Amino acid sequence: MSKVHNFSAGPCILAPEVIEGAAKAVKELDNIGLSLIEISHRSKEFIAIMDEAQNLVREILDVPSNYSILFLQGGASLGFYMTALNFMKEGGTAGYLNTGAWSKKAIKEAKMVGNVEVVASSEDANFNYIPKEYPVSTSWNYLHLTSNNTIFGTQIKNFPVSKIPVICDMSSDILSRKINVADFDMIYAGAQKNMGPAGTTLYIIKNDFLGKSGRAIPSMLDLGIHADKGSMFNTPPVFAIYTCMLTLKWVKENGGLAAMEKRNEDKAALLYNTIDSNPLFEGTAAKEDRSNMNVTFVLTDDTNKDEFDKMWNKAGISGVKGHRDVGGYRASIYNAMPKESIQVLVDVMNEFANKFA
Amino acid sequence: MSKVHNFSAGPCILAPEVIEGAAKAVKELDNIGLSLIEISHRSKEFIAIMDEAQNLVREILDVPSNYSILFLQGGASLGFYMTALNFMKEGGTAGYLNTGAWSKKAIKEAKMVGNVEVVASSEDANFNYIPKEYPVSTSWNYLHLTSNNTIFGTQIKNFPVSKIPVICDMSSDILSRKINVADFDMIYAGAQKNMGPAGTTLYIIKNDFLGKSGRAIPSMLDLGIHADKGSMFNTPPVFAIYTCMLTLKWVKENGGLAAMEKRNEDKAALLYNTIDSNPLFEGTAAKEDRSNMNVTFVLTDDTNKDEFDKMWNKAGISGVKGHRDVGGYRASIYNAMPKESIQVLVDVMNEFANKFA
Repeated sequence: MSKVHNFSAGPCILAPEVIEGAAKAVKELDNIGLSLIEISHRSKEFIAIMDEAQNLVREILDVPSNYSILFLQGGASLGFYMTALNFMKEGGTAGYLNTGAWSKKAIKEAKMVGNVEVVASSEDANFNYIPKEYPVSTSWNYLHLTSNNTIFGTQIKNFPVSKIPVICDMSSDILSRKINVADFDMIYAGAQKNMGPAGTTLYIIKNDFLGKSGRAIPSMLDLGIHADKGSMFNTPPVFAIYTCMLTLKWVKENGGLAAMEKRNEDKAALLYNTIDSNPLFEGTAAKEDRSNMNVTFVLTDDTNKDEFDKMWNKAGISGVKGHRDVGGYRASIYNAMPKESIQVLVDVMNEFANKFA
Repeated sequence: MSKVHNFSAGPCILAPEVIEGAAKAVKELDNIGLSLIEISHRSKEFIAIMDEAQNLVREILDVPSNYSILFLQGGASLGFYMTALNFMKEGGTAGYLNTGAWSKKAIKEAKMVGNVEVVASSEDANFNYIPKEYPVSTSWNYLHLTSNNTIFGTQIKNFPVSKIPVICDMSSDILSRKINVADFDMIYAGAQKNMGPAGTTLYIIKNDFLGKSGRAIPSMLDLGIHADKGSMFNTPPVFAIYTCMLTLKWVKENGGLAAMEKRNEDKAALLYNTIDSNPLFEGTAAKEDRSNMNVTFVLTDDTNKDEFDKMWNKAGISGVKGHRDVGGYRASIYNAMPKESIQVLVDVMNEFANKFA
């Protein structure tokens, strides 16, 4: 296999051991004579897999015992609507912090259900920072946050202390740093960044937050039903959950969240230092809000852009093209990204700088 | 790998070539240096996979050009609600044929949206037959059918000619026989029987049937949005779609639906003949409605049940325990099930009969 440095924003790089283990299980699961993908989800083998995945989430994230852990389908995109449907009360209002494209989608879907107050927005500055001071009404049903903004390269560093329930979409930075789960009434996260392949979404929900919306909810959108059924109300996405379980094992074996956080800080610093120490590059996000997952930057002068693109292409780098809303470049450096791959990008950047400065 | 004869009702047996190909792609996709599960869904590689999967569905099922083909998430379980939400008009009514547990779930979710008329039901006989004569009002928005009932072992052999749009849940017999897609305004099917692993759901929808409900629909539940976005509104379940694509290729290379239908008829006949020719066994479904996918039977005398269970266990057979609603046994013999495995079960049945008759 030729070495590719995969900076894709998601679906994205996973640890080699995880990919190896997932491929092996598709071929044959644990010497049972059957593939992972042809066993019943009610089999003892899959029940053990689901249990292990849930237990690893509980252990690694130190999830209190009064929270349910679910692996559902539909991505955060379906989560946006389910959040409002399950937790916005009839006639109620929820507060949303607007920090980017995904926040906006969350707001749009919530408005299908009830009243939304946008507590603050950085849209005026193309979402290049995280608003920090905003009023929160105790009459609202919840406050909704997006912890990391893949497109704009910003990340909430300190979660607000709130008197009302906080719901957070952590799709793009779950498992990347320590968090205090008890500060949230619900966390949800599409798997396809730090946790696994596309196809499943993690929900961590405080049990007594469930079942209070006062409205009838269709079964598949009812988080209370999924919690009651232990995430097995209908056929779960077996392969995606298995692969998440392997990633969770890998996180645990590699030191858990404290170690992930430290590694991610080191990795991000290497790249941000290169950007900051070099007049040919400029970061697009406010320094204090810079994401440790998605590093966004532009060339200060586009004259030699083609040359830069050729250079990183030649180095085996893929997936660094910036999102059209920001332009330039985005290096997504999730948990599984080795520092060596970031060094390859940094070397290319330095070489480019030496050539054209 | 020891030989296991996998009669699981779903997720279930897939062709060995499909399992082999899926495992290979998880390890590395087409020598690109990356795993299938770590590439962006916007990459040229995945766009080609999605296109090929959709094109194969169109070719194999002979889907007219004015139908959209989507691979979404949530299973038929979410499809039950989405069906009503997208196609039941404000204040409208839809007709539902109640042929088993899955029909009942479809009815339950549809009632969250509007009025449901149950056109006929076989619940009085524990769903052991398919009702055939029932009134259909031209004022209804659609007629909903479940083509195959996994739990009860029944299957609609002749679809009703209808003056109103017909929507059919074909989760458990899609790709198993020839159908005329033009007779349906929508077909939907969870992948995890004949099409692939758990984690994606096929929708085949007549384009001009979309967008007429008159209600605001959340984005992820709006089939019109998914059709407009070519099934890429949000991150699709990459692995599940790839594996469906491999299965579709396998169906095509093995003679398409005509060949599948013939093989499935032969396979089912072998098992039903064994049941009928032997006083120790009794089929639970009405003969004319017997499913070619799920063969349900009971022992006429349970005295030697333990002995029978030991015998098939010893022969390497798994997944034949009947659903609790019917009891006895259920042999699920989907497309990928080789006749040789059915012969192993038949041999066990004959041996049991010789021993205890």
